[in-house]
Amino acid sequence: MNNQRHITLPEGFRAAGVACGIKTGGKRDLAIITADTDTATAIVTTRNQIVGAPITWCRRILPRGYGKTRGIVINAGVSNVCTGERGLKDARTMAAETARHIGTGPENILVASTGVIGQPLPMGKIKRGIASAARALGRRCDSHVAEAIMTTDTRRKSAVVTSRIGARKITLAGIAKGSGMIAPSMATMISVITTDAAISPPALKKALTAAVATSFNAVTVDSDTSTSDIVAVLASGRAENARITTASKQYARFASNLKEVCAELARAIAADGEGATRLIRVTVLGARSDRHAEVAAKSVANSPLFKCAVHGCDPNWGRIAMALGKSAATVVAEKLTIRIGPTLVFKRGVPTKFNARRVSQHLASDEVEIVCNLGIGKGGFTALTCDLSKDYITINADYHT
Amino acid sequence: MNNQRHITLPEGFRAAGVACGIKTGGKRDLAIITADTDTATAIVTTRNQIVGAPITWCRRILPRGYGKTRGIVINAGVSNVCTGERGLKDARTMAAETARHIGTGPENILVASTGVIGQPLPMGKIKRGIASAARALGRRCDSHVAEAIMTTDTRRKSAVVTSRIGARKITLAGIAKGSGMIAPSMATMISVITTDAAISPPALKKALTAAVATSFNAVTVDSDTSTSDIVAVLASGRAENARITTASKQYARFASNLKEVCAELARAIAADGEGATRLIRVTVLGARSDRHAEVAAKSVANSPLFKCAVHGCDPNWGRIAMALGKSAATVVAEKLTIRIGPTLVFKRGVPTKFNARRVSQHLASDEVEIVCNLGIGKGGFTALTCDLSKDYITINADYHT
Repeated sequence: MNNQRHITLPEGFRAAGVACGIKTGGKRDLAIITADTDTATAIVTTRNQIVGAPITWCRRILPRGYGKTRGIVINAGVSNVCTGERGLKDARTMAAETARHIGTGPENILVASTGVIGQPLPMGKIKRGIASAARALGRRCDSHVAEAIMTTDTRRKSAVVTSRIGARKITLAGIAKGSGMIAPSMATMISVITTDAAISPPALKKALTAAVATSFNAVTVDSDTSTSDIVAVLASGRAENARITTASKQYARFASNLKEVCAELARAIAADGEGATRLIRVTVLGARSDRHAEVAAKSVANSPLFKCAVHGCDPNWGRIAMALGKSAATVVAEKLTIRIGPTLVFKRGVPTKFNARRVSQHLASDEVEIVCNLGIGKGGFTALTCDLSKDYITINADYHT
Repeated sequence: MNNQRHITLPEGFRAAGVACGIKTGGKRDLAIITADTDTATAIVTTRNQIVGAPITWCRRILPRGYGKTRGIVINAGVSNVCTGERGLKDARTMAAETARHIGTGPENILVASTGVIGQPLPMGKIKRGIASAARALGRRCDSHVAEAIMTTDTRRKSAVVTSRIGARKITLAGIAKGSGMIAPSMATMISVITTDAAISPPALKKALTAAVATSFNAVTVDSDTSTSDIVAVLASGRAENARITTASKQYARFASNLKEVCAELARAIAADGEGATRLIRVTVLGARSDRHAEVAAKSVANSPLFKCAVHGCDPNWGRIAMALGKSAATVVAEKLTIRIGPTLVFKRGVPTKFNARRVSQHLASDEVEIVCNLGIGKGGFTALTCDLSKDYITINADYHT
């Protein structure tokens, strides 16, 4: 597992993850992923109105959300959010230090920070960490990188997809972190995806925005949207396929591959939500529109009462009906049908006679499936979440201090 | 405490609370509150699109939300929601049985049920309970009534306000229940308010709607909106004041008294939220509008991360900034100021140097005050909530079974 490669599998990238001393116990907390040359890059960032200095920095160097960069530097433990002018200066310094070591300008380096809000970065440690990561850059320590970006995550998260564009094999690989404060709104947590595909920056941005909508943006752990969310994708072009543009025949294939990587990472984030013991997929069908389906599915996925019921393996489908009904989506009890796993529990306004033990057994499984058919239109959406356990409280009642 | 009067303090009302066998252990679970004669009544009901049969019944007998009734019958333990045609028949039977005992028609009796969704009411028990409550109707068992409507509440909730309308003393008294699935949307949980004031039904409705907006509707325990929310106010007129209409000079006084009762009950609900160990008041000032302030305050009050931090006495103000920023209200970090209790922790985009121990001490107190000034406009709102503890999970992971 420690030698598993992912983020540097696509040609053209090197990476390293080190411990610079922000996290206690010598845990890794600083990562650099670099591209060998100027590389097509697209980012999607949080919609929270309060954003960290690293987000401001990334938006400044990629004002349209795409362009060319040489890589990204990431630290965990302190998020550099709500830190005023000093925070912005520190983010720039992180970019400049990284840039200096790989021989480029600061404007070519993305920055991401995750962790506690409102504390200044310990810049001495960060600078030493950047120097040591820069020395370690290579293609053998991908798992160190995935580990260095973790906060309350219990598992490293990575995904790899290979495909063909014309005669060329292309590879896409991603890592992600995210465990709490997860209800991305057009972006999410931190994720970096690399690919060797040749693709124009605007096409890369378009594909990323589409992929995020049904993957990261479908996840909610606790309805709280982070101030540091960023997904970055870097495409080196080393696969030497004919360069993809939004007009290319091959664009759809690439977009679908990217969606696959994002979906796998999103699934891993939901399954590793703070305190989570299982993954829950809430699918809403038959909604007036896809947007209605999304609103309804997220209302269920965000309901603490529903999430507690799943945690207790309690076949309390009434809370699903409640959460659908409170949403802004059109819901009519008499048209509504609810399934928990394979069991129909509510059919057009009336509860069915179901085997409660069988439903409890499904709720105890690693992946819980809820399917609600609103019986109104053709809209559909699947939201991903996890159960709500006492460990969520333990983790979050004392995270800061 | 057991003999404390409230709901029958205003002249013209009798009440009783009995155990009919829905709750285990002989706990009280059925209450009747009756008016001696046809009495001005106003109701506000849930905005959840899935509503219980009792809500449907109340809307049917008071299609404009006001009129005259002779009282209300309430049971706890089973909410009669998502029960189809049978549920509606059962709600009507509850009204009819109560009406028969007091000598009126079913269309004069409001019905409210609270408890598990999707189960049929045990009508044998209910009918026997109604008979026994009708026999016990009087002015000496108000605390039995407040107790009989409780579900996971740990305390009975009541409030009394006396005032003068012209030369006449008037009394308003209310009871409420509500502990989980509390995020009222133009209504809330179950609350019944009695008064001896003489007031026209439309004026009563107008005053109730206004009172609810800043009291019950300011409460959120868990962001989940019940399918059974109802507030009913009954005005007997026995104070013999000149009858209040919306045009009366005295209307404002009455509306303010009603607001006071609702605010006290709302406060009691928030303080007794499921698993709560303390009450939290989140005030947002300086918002673009009152509506912006409400959205921002509720975003903080609903944030599980914020509520866990308060539970852990953790001065993690970054989560307040995060929750404000993710809301639909306009928020600009550089204009934002945050206070926790008496301590300024964030001032126009920059953290202050504050005494973390002093902030933790405030967070450990019974009533936590958060004041956020957005520095943009003149809108304000105070939301009420409670901390999020492991007991919330214990209560809700196994409530149904």
